[in-house]
Amino acid sequence: MNLRAVLHVVAILIILEGIALLTGIAFSLFYGDGDAGAILISSAVCLLAGGLLFLATRNQDELKLREGFAVVVLGWSALTLFGALPFLISGTVPSFSDAFFETMSGFTTTGATILTNIEAMPHGLLFWRSLTHWLGGMGIVVLSLAILPLLGVGGMQLFKAEVPGPVKDRLSPRIADTAKILWGVYLLLTLIEVVLLLFGGMSLFDSLCHTFGSMATGGFSTKNASVAHYNSLYIEMVILVFMFLAGTNFSLHYRFLAGKRDVYRLDREFRFYLFLTLIAILIVSGIVYFSKPVSPGGALRSASFQVVSIMTTTGFCSDNFELWLPSGQLLMILLMFIGGCAGSTGGSVKVIRIMVVLKHSLAEIKKLLHPNAYIPVRVGGRVLAPDVVTNILAFLIIYMLVFVAASIGMTLLGVDVVTAFSSVAATLGNIGPGLNLVGPVDHYGHLPAAGKWLLSFCMLAGRLELYTVFILFSPDFWKK
Amino acid sequence: MNLRAVLHVVAILIILEGIALLTGIAFSLFYGDGDAGAILISSAVCLLAGGLLFLATRNQDELKLREGFAVVVLGWSALTLFGALPFLISGTVPSFSDAFFETMSGFTTTGATILTNIEAMPHGLLFWRSLTHWLGGMGIVVLSLAILPLLGVGGMQLFKAEVPGPVKDRLSPRIADTAKILWGVYLLLTLIEVVLLLFGGMSLFDSLCHTFGSMATGGFSTKNASVAHYNSLYIEMVILVFMFLAGTNFSLHYRFLAGKRDVYRLDREFRFYLFLTLIAILIVSGIVYFSKPVSPGGALRSASFQVVSIMTTTGFCSDNFELWLPSGQLLMILLMFIGGCAGSTGGSVKVIRIMVVLKHSLAEIKKLLHPNAYIPVRVGGRVLAPDVVTNILAFLIIYMLVFVAASIGMTLLGVDVVTAFSSVAATLGNIGPGLNLVGPVDHYGHLPAAGKWLLSFCMLAGRLELYTVFILFSPDFWKK
Repeated sequence: MNLRAVLHVVAILIILEGIALLTGIAFSLFYGDGDAGAILISSAVCLLAGGLLFLATRNQDELKLREGFAVVVLGWSALTLFGALPFLISGTVPSFSDAFFETMSGFTTTGATILTNIEAMPHGLLFWRSLTHWLGGMGIVVLSLAILPLLGVGGMQLFKAEVPGPVKDRLSPRIADTAKILWGVYLLLTLIEVVLLLFGGMSLFDSLCHTFGSMATGGFSTKNASVAHYNSLYIEMVILVFMFLAGTNFSLHYRFLAGKRDVYRLDREFRFYLFLTLIAILIVSGIVYFSKPVSPGGALRSASFQVVSIMTTTGFCSDNFELWLPSGQLLMILLMFIGGCAGSTGGSVKVIRIMVVLKHSLAEIKKLLHPNAYIPVRVGGRVLAPDVVTNILAFLIIYMLVFVAASIGMTLLGVDVVTAFSSVAATLGNIGPGLNLVGPVDHYGHLPAAGKWLLSFCMLAGRLELYTVFILFSPDFWKK
Repeated sequence: MNLRAVLHVVAILIILEGIALLTGIAFSLFYGDGDAGAILISSAVCLLAGGLLFLATRNQDELKLREGFAVVVLGWSALTLFGALPFLISGTVPSFSDAFFETMSGFTTTGATILTNIEAMPHGLLFWRSLTHWLGGMGIVVLSLAILPLLGVGGMQLFKAEVPGPVKDRLSPRIADTAKILWGVYLLLTLIEVVLLLFGGMSLFDSLCHTFGSMATGGFSTKNASVAHYNSLYIEMVILVFMFLAGTNFSLHYRFLAGKRDVYRLDREFRFYLFLTLIAILIVSGIVYFSKPVSPGGALRSASFQVVSIMTTTGFCSDNFELWLPSGQLLMILLMFIGGCAGSTGGSVKVIRIMVVLKHSLAEIKKLLHPNAYIPVRVGGRVLAPDVVTNILAFLIIYMLVFVAASIGMTLLGVDVVTAFSSVAATLGNIGPGLNLVGPVDHYGHLPAAGKWLLSFCMLAGRLELYTVFILFSPDFWKK
């Protein structure tokens, strides 16, 4: 393990974070909330610490497989640690556990909050809070499309050949080129959503923050009531569309913009994603209709926003699904285990894995009838290597094991079963709201500090596709 | 599909059921509850219907792979249908849904009951109710050790070479021989437990019924308060030991009795089963101690009985775990997903599958570090074929899918989330008690009729290792 080379990359990330922090100051000064000083100090700490680390670790070799894992986990953790500074220094979030939880929730695009009164927060800090979403979302797109496939994590090697690069339809050998292209798409979609929200009467500040929340499938809002605050069909529909786009593989957007107009129609994962979304909206609309006095149109509006918000793992809220019939609540919990497409900013298990797992299960049943036949798992005509299939099955099982272990942990800390299950599902899947004490109109602030650390770990592990984090716990990893 | 050959075997099963029914009459007459007539009529119906079917389907060919699946599913269903007759004819369970549910719960060794006042039931019917456990348990031992391995269901082919037969350590080519040996072991253990319970002061009737419940890991009691009724450490410990033995692979018992004294010590699955049981008892004891005013010894007594009862999927109850801390309730729910060893009367996922899944997950993490290395999954030094491993992974995933789908179904019928989840976990895993409305001191009687049919299906699917049932839904199965 070449730790110096790893720290060198981490140093660069911290310096970039120091620069990113400065953008919030514009809103601090404009709204005059007095948080500019805290942000400035935090930025200076980042630049200083990152700069010193950069100098101390200069002139290092290229990163290898193992170092790749370490950079990802240490990088995300360091960004969270330094990103929590403005909350602590300003005194708005005095507890370290809380500030760490909130920043981890931001960078992992989870959107679970410990804040009890969001609207009382200074604007510069709120902007930084939402910006962590946007930066985390950017990071995850590149990670899942350019880095994880090379590391062979949880079936992501499926996408090795599908990543856009400057050479048409071939993987660019240099991650930087891929990253630039994906960030271009990300930036473009961000700009469009900001403009559309401005048209809907949102302030520039709120437009930016809600765009960051939707493009990153994060879910931090600047309002206590989340998107329900606006009670505007237009705003809900704009955010819904962009949540859905953010939950789509970004390489599809790139290829669409590059002129391949039928790319969505041809992609099997996208079609299944669309199919699942529509089916879920249909069923949930019916349940909402029978849950409360509401018109059919109103039920459809509420169901479609909540379904897309939860399934893409965003977590914005325009209606409190805890007040629906039990079947509606259960379906929302189950949607938390699907998530967006691979290569999107969405978290959780991912549509492609659900697809492969379902196809494999059918293949196993067929095998019973034809014990000597070779029955491969196909996605879009392409046969998947058995290795990739077992990799994906193992991912799902490790996901369930972590879910179960963390839920036990939460109940041991004295949390009730429903809160424990749903808080873990909502953080491991990077969604945000759960049920009971962490429901859509509640927050995570009242949980015991140890629970916040456990859930912070879930956010990180879920965001980095589990393997990336757990490999660091393997003794083999540290062997020479 | 040779349907006549299938029905011929089913006819034999119904005739045997008609004979088995008669045994209850002794207790009807002894206690004079007036249920002898209903049992006699039911027996006559079985003998007549079975006999006619037997004659109508005579002179048939041998069964092939497909017919094997059909015999198992149709056989279990037919036994349940005819086994419900005494409840209906006597009028003690007037609803057909209820009578079917109760009988399915018996034959699948689940132990979930719709009865509100068990002690008010006539003794002959109660005896028949417990006897369905014992017969179902007998059936499942033979099924899982002699038939399923041949059908290649869910990794059970692992045991192809481990089944005891008259030739030492080799699979008997004739299922009948294997069956005789296993039934000998089953009968012997049953006799010992009956004698031990008689020593504890139980009546012969109660000894027999509780023995049937524990040897089959069923859980039907003759008392409203289940085993808690006796409040006897001796009785609890006898039942605990026999539940644990019933949750062990019966081929180990056979080999032990045949003189191989170290067979338990050498078996990896048994060691892991013992390890999981002890760890669970340790943790749950701590939780019970902090849940209520109880001595350390009392906590250990309560925890050990409940852990063994739930993990072996029996469902007897000496303490209401719904009154424990949330962590204790959650752990009991999770134990429901482990179950006994393969080749035992225990249901649920089974220890061996949990073992293989855990080992495979570790192997996948290792593979990330050594992308080109071949890292096999071993159990006790033996390398498992990749086919068997994917088969087992698919089993677990299908199990979770059925669990989720059935839970959605239950909530759509208006049942709350906790009751829905736990009732499905408790029936799919053939355990019995769940949480909330179906908790250890409650019953299933108040559930909607459609819910009872759904849960009956779960009991059957869970008991027959899922594949056996789902294969009948595959269009391929019915092709010529």
